[in-house]
Amino acid sequence: MTVNQQVLLTERPRYITPTANCFTIQESEAPSPAAGEVLVKTIWLSLDPYLHSRMQRTSDQARPVKLGGVMLGLAAGRVVESKHDGFQAGDIVYGVWNNWQDFSLPDPGKLRKVDPRVKQPSHVLGALNVAGFAAYLALYDLSPAKAGETVVIGTATGALGQIAGQIAKNLGCRVVGIVGHRDKVGLATEKLGYDACVNYRDKSFATNLAEACPDGIDVYLDTIGGHVTQVVLSCLNLNARISVCGMMSQLDSDKSRQKLMSADVLLKETMSRRLSIRGLISMDFFDDRFKDFQNDMIDWINSGTVKPLEDVVEGLENAPAALQDMFSGKHTGKLIVKVGN
Amino acid sequence: MTVNQQVLLTERPRYITPTANCFTIQESEAPSPAAGEVLVKTIWLSLDPYLHSRMQRTSDQARPVKLGGVMLGLAAGRVVESKHDGFQAGDIVYGVWNNWQDFSLPDPGKLRKVDPRVKQPSHVLGALNVAGFAAYLALYDLSPAKAGETVVIGTATGALGQIAGQIAKNLGCRVVGIVGHRDKVGLATEKLGYDACVNYRDKSFATNLAEACPDGIDVYLDTIGGHVTQVVLSCLNLNARISVCGMMSQLDSDKSRQKLMSADVLLKETMSRRLSIRGLISMDFFDDRFKDFQNDMIDWINSGTVKPLEDVVEGLENAPAALQDMFSGKHTGKLIVKVGN
Repeated sequence: MTVNQQVLLTERPRYITPTANCFTIQESEAPSPAAGEVLVKTIWLSLDPYLHSRMQRTSDQARPVKLGGVMLGLAAGRVVESKHDGFQAGDIVYGVWNNWQDFSLPDPGKLRKVDPRVKQPSHVLGALNVAGFAAYLALYDLSPAKAGETVVIGTATGALGQIAGQIAKNLGCRVVGIVGHRDKVGLATEKLGYDACVNYRDKSFATNLAEACPDGIDVYLDTIGGHVTQVVLSCLNLNARISVCGMMSQLDSDKSRQKLMSADVLLKETMSRRLSIRGLISMDFFDDRFKDFQNDMIDWINSGTVKPLEDVVEGLENAPAALQDMFSGKHTGKLIVKVGN
Repeated sequence: MTVNQQVLLTERPRYITPTANCFTIQESEAPSPAAGEVLVKTIWLSLDPYLHSRMQRTSDQARPVKLGGVMLGLAAGRVVESKHDGFQAGDIVYGVWNNWQDFSLPDPGKLRKVDPRVKQPSHVLGALNVAGFAAYLALYDLSPAKAGETVVIGTATGALGQIAGQIAKNLGCRVVGIVGHRDKVGLATEKLGYDACVNYRDKSFATNLAEACPDGIDVYLDTIGGHVTQVVLSCLNLNARISVCGMMSQLDSDKSRQKLMSADVLLKETMSRRLSIRGLISMDFFDDRFKDFQNDMIDWINSGTVKPLEDVVEGLENAPAALQDMFSGKHTGKLIVKVGN
């Protein structure tokens, strides 16, 4: 028998962010595909912030994970055996299904094949997926940035931020990152090409940001909200554009950093600074823009213009702890669990 | 001698909103124009919310009115005597100068002549000026409304709101007004063509608004902020558009209606509802769009498609009390003081 290691969700998170003890690891026998089915071996798991929502009893995004069921998420894997006309053994596929296990029989209708131009298939989980797509839409469509402008990126070394920073740099912008850990400041400037980076946990955050943006801020990719947004607001230029791509402050257990700015302050600044604020859910643009994005991003990665930063954790059994760590900001770049080969 | 009645600002407002006792009325002798000067008789004074700011010691908009000096604002008047090549006696002119007096010698460079197509010159103070222009820009440029959509207008019977409501109706939208006084509800639906109107001071405001917008809200012209915006937010459709044109809640002495919605709630809704929020200062668009607006609006008024509602107070001596009343919402439509003939 082929052993199938599985990670089950056996307890729902008590607080907003999930903890490793919500999961139980078990071994079972690998399934066999029936007619029309495809047996997939999971190779890479993508760990993403939205998973906290899927682990709740009710999710605002989609159906929650069943208690006692195999955990789900975005993953890429290899077709081991196919009894479906559309796939053959060896195909590299990706999608969202209950893939926190070595072997599974996903709904073939939900599997997509990796574009043959993609050299590193794990990129389909981040740079070539929702995170990269959101970065692209923010800087080209929703809050477009022009050469010479100053772009500020929240969670600058995260899955979305790192790609946005590199795109903005390639557009000829001054690019300033915001991070939540001291260690990430150097990484942002040295590895990801940011012109400057500031830590929002520093007491001098407001001063540091103002100094890093001597010409003010023209475009802000907001992934944090709370106090961070309030500080950014004070540096925004007339006609500045904000894409709201996330709200990490809502997951922040340190409420002191969530200091309440009232909506009226934001609205008043919106008027007096002539801001444009847009909410971004990248999948809304799938039909219109995903092909453009994918073609551009594959080119950029293949030419070295964009270098996706991945943080790879080895072993399915380490996925629960890695997910917990993600919510406390312990990783940088796109967080991936390497499950198999 | 020709008597010149003047209204002087002799005390700055202690609170945000001005009171009538900040002013002193005096009589002096009417001035005579020297070479290059123009003697103007004030006919209509425009009372506008921004005047509260000009009355403060420091103004965020422009230079404050000098203490002891003649009060200023937008006004229209008739040239009585001209020693300037650009004007002749009988010209109807308008502009911003120290015009809270019967006779004055404004800087001719700041005077504009009323377009001969305009049949009722007082319209150049409201429907054909900043208020109408903002309504036009909001509905055509910043938060465009399409036929069949639901548009909600804050301060629905005010100078801006009444024009916005009529434009939106002509665009084929369902148009719902928000007012702050019971008496204005009927006025909005009967005189201004609103499909429905709700009073934000009603306890059942949230329910009333939801019932008035059975298909949700697609476009919101926010002139109020605070609690009102929070209630509107809960009815917004996906991809709804907001133009922020004012923030009357900041002038509202009843703080209980200013209940604090945090900026994070607004940002979270911006993302999940894919909102577009834009700050509107109409004069930014003067070069690009004012001519289009003026041509359209003159046509609409002349054809009866838009019927500007004016609230005319007779007599310069009543201007101080009328200004105070404006801030407590006692007037409807564009508030104008008729100073002379």
